[in-house]
Amino acid sequence: MIFRTQFFEDYVTGEQRETFGRTITEADIVTHAGQTGDFFPHHMDAEWCKNQPFKQRIAHGTLTFSVAIGMTATEINPEAFSKGYDRLRFIKPVYIGDTIRVTIVISEKKESKKPRFGQVTEHVEVFNQKNEIVMVCDHILLANKKNEE
Amino acid sequence: MIFRTQFFEDYVTGEQRETFGRTITEADIVTHAGQTGDFFPHHMDAEWCKNQPFKQRIAHGTLTFSVAIGMTATEINPEAFSKGYDRLRFIKPVYIGDTIRVTIVISEKKESKKPRFGQVTEHVEVFNQKNEIVMVCDHILLANKKNEE
Amino acid sequence: MIFRTQFFEDYVTGEQRETFGRTITEADIVTHAGQTGDFFPHHMDAEWCKNQPFKQRIAHGTLTFSVAIGMTATEINPEAFSKGYDRLRFIKPVYIGDTIRVTIVISEKKESKKPRFGQVTEHVEVFNQKNEIVMVCDHILLANKKNEE
Amino acid sequence: MIFRTQFFEDYVTGEQRETFGRTITEADIVTHAGQTGDFFPHHMDAEWCKNQPFKQRIAHGTLTFSVAIGMTATEINPEAFSKGYDRLRFIKPVYIGDTIRVTIVISEKKESKKPRFGQVTEHVEVFNQKNEIVMVCDHILLANKKNEE
Amino acid sequence: MIFRTQFFEDYVTGEQRETFGRTITEADIVTHAGQTGDFFPHHMDAEWCKNQPFKQRIAHGTLTFSVAIGMTATEINPEAFSKGYDRLRFIKPVYIGDTIRVTIVISEKKESKKPRFGQVTEHVEVFNQKNEIVMVCDHILLANKKNEE
Amino acid sequence: MIFRTQFFEDYVTGEQRETFGRTITEADIVTHAGQTGDFFPHHMDAEWCKNQPFKQRIAHGTLTFSVAIGMTATEINPEAFSKGYDRLRFIKPVYIGDTIRVTIVISEKKESKKPRFGQVTEHVEVFNQKNEIVMVCDHILLANKKNEE
Repeated sequence: MIFRTQFFEDYVTGEQRETFGRTITEADIVTHAGQTGDFFPHHMDAEWCKNQPFKQRIAHGTLTFSVAIGMTATEINPEAFSKGYDRLRFIKPVYIGDTIRVTIVISEKKESKKPRFGQVTEHVEVFNQKNEIVMVCDHILLANKKNEE
Repeated sequence: MIFRTQFFEDYVTGEQRETFGRTITEADIVTHAGQTGDFFPHHMDAEWCKNQPFKQRIAHGTLTFSVAIGMTATEINPEAFSKGYDRLRFIKPVYIGDTIRVTIVISEKKESKKPRFGQVTEHVEVFNQKNEIVMVCDHILLANKKNEE
Repeated sequence: MIFRTQFFEDYVTGEQRETFGRTITEADIVTHAGQTGDFFPHHMDAEWCKNQPFKQRIAHGTLTFSVAIGMTATEINPEAFSKGYDRLRFIKPVYIGDTIRVTIVISEKKESKKPRFGQVTEHVEVFNQKNEIVMVCDHILLANKKNEE
Repeated sequence: MIFRTQFFEDYVTGEQRETFGRTITEADIVTHAGQTGDFFPHHMDAEWCKNQPFKQRIAHGTLTFSVAIGMTATEINPEAFSKGYDRLRFIKPVYIGDTIRVTIVISEKKESKKPRFGQVTEHVEVFNQKNEIVMVCDHILLANKKNEE
Repeated sequence: MIFRTQFFEDYVTGEQRETFGRTITEADIVTHAGQTGDFFPHHMDAEWCKNQPFKQRIAHGTLTFSVAIGMTATEINPEAFSKGYDRLRFIKPVYIGDTIRVTIVISEKKESKKPRFGQVTEHVEVFNQKNEIVMVCDHILLANKKNEE
Repeated sequence: MIFRTQFFEDYVTGEQRETFGRTITEADIVTHAGQTGDFFPHHMDAEWCKNQPFKQRIAHGTLTFSVAIGMTATEINPEAFSKGYDRLRFIKPVYIGDTIRVTIVISEKKESKKPRFGQVTEHVEVFNQKNEIVMVCDHILLANKKNEE
């Protein structure tokens, strides 16, 4: 975790970074159920899951999302802040024992409603160990412009 | 947590439900940092926060989102599944000790790409104890159509 | 979790409900040891357990009890409160990977010492995935009487 | 945690022991909700509690019970095992910040149904820092008899 | 956990004690990563580990140390306090599923800089289930002298 | 968390780095007690602590150590590994609400027993928000030499 100052002008469309991997464990699912209160049988009942199309317990969508976003939290940019997320989609289930890694690419830069900020979109893709995409989203940042200081 | 079968036709635009409240604690933030690996000083360093505009530690966006969505996880509908989320926006910070509750309204129904499903949008709003909106998003569901069984 | 107002008169002897299942994981046992401080080798030492009659680590009795009671916590009745539990018995060990579910039946209604309350007994049975009873207890409730309001 | 072999004959009615204290924290309640899935507003919603008779969040009964029993788990007796608990009663609420300690007295010894065991009852009392009893129960043990070896 | 008063004079060089065993679980590693923020792939990425010499995820050094020291925390001596640790060495990896136990021997007694204390060294050895030493350290205590009271 | 290859020759004596701060919370202490099994009243019993010289609950030494070392876990050097720690000393108590940060300086480089490694010592100092040193230790690394590849 480091400070890295980046103004709107410093973001380069197409620039990409990739995280380490992280194995999603049974303990992660149990902890996430405990944090969120979502004890749906899809995540907690191995017997029930045996008769479902996915056959085994699957990670909560919010777990995959939270861990994936956390994995990208390596740089603090004091000139930008998170506005939110768009087009968050769960493409494939994440099972216990799957190892995910995340790629981020600067996919768009554009003016924002407020002239002193520019809007930067980071396209986030989460892959499992088979290189299948399991989740995508667009992270929307507002970044200060240099000439607006 | 109960089973409640709802086909696409059974969803009624404008129908609303509301959750109980839940107080976001320091323990929740510590647990979420531990689950996600996001130890940014915004969440973990009370001294650093004193000199920031928000003055005190704030909940991770992914924490507010995960807990809010978890709070709505009360009914299992075997005829629908979650496609993802749109327009997730963090409107105001959530502080330690804030109590959030969630309202959900069926905001849209439309055809999906696959004819046997319809797409249902639940608009999710998260309020704090001062009745301020702190987070919004649109939950996108795909629900089976009755006549497609 | 919903509000459902039930006076003493509204409870019907013989009425039954059943929960979803939940798989008891190694993470649950580790968390419970951590919460209670009970690190007895029965729960924490896989090597020692190999030479015991039960051959493998077993869930704490208080874990099975707490999770089972938590699984039934789906309805808040503002007209009743919990007085305690009787005849809590651990019938069979719960192992890592076992999936438990809970049935509750209203087994008794009677006058209480205080005339404005009636005493309701819920008989609680916990089953594993082989349909064996692993735990039983009687939950004692005091419920307001309608005519005492 | 030590081994201490005690046969039925070795238990002495009236013998008493007392634990250290332990402060029940907000983190304990959050962890217990997460372990059990019981997110009732009595434990989790500080705003709702303000309008209840108890005015503030209270510990789950199963939390007080589990922690209290865990506090007594200091000696492993290979000649006895836990049969269950009787007359578990929650006398007073346990609030965040309360410090509990536990006393145990051998309150009864009697024959059991199986001749090679005797039944021992430990009466358990849980006190808060004001020396008020908050919980009681009877722990039922079956202990091997010496002459039955 | 018991009180046991021991002055400097009461410690006997060569005296030894041994703990119960404890199985190190995946949940322990996940919890420790979450507590410390150390999400290095050695502990968290099962795929990456497959290509490392150790082939599988290993416990954090600080986890093995913390758990081992915690396992020895059975007696509170009001006449001594911990000064620190010397020569902490990680000899062999601890893998998920390994069961560790700890031996402690009083290895040295000597005068300390302050005349009213003596310095006691406890040599700590941590073994796995194959009886291999995985960690060692020297725990340095300062204990009050009797004649200094 | 990034990869940064450093051979023995690349380490520069006197080079220093500093971490962000992290506030030690009650939840951290509760979690650490739960992970280690150390429920000593120094950490868990607020009432007992009132009558001790330190007046309030204090962090476990192993907690301060584990968190401090975890805070420095930002760079993975595939050419070095951790041998252990020397002279770990707890200088001042860490209280709930204290914010710690860590400085690391390369304090020594020397030959190791095995000619292909050099031994690097990182001197670690942990400060609280008053800039008082609360803990120190020496981290001993073995690093590959370039000419030994």
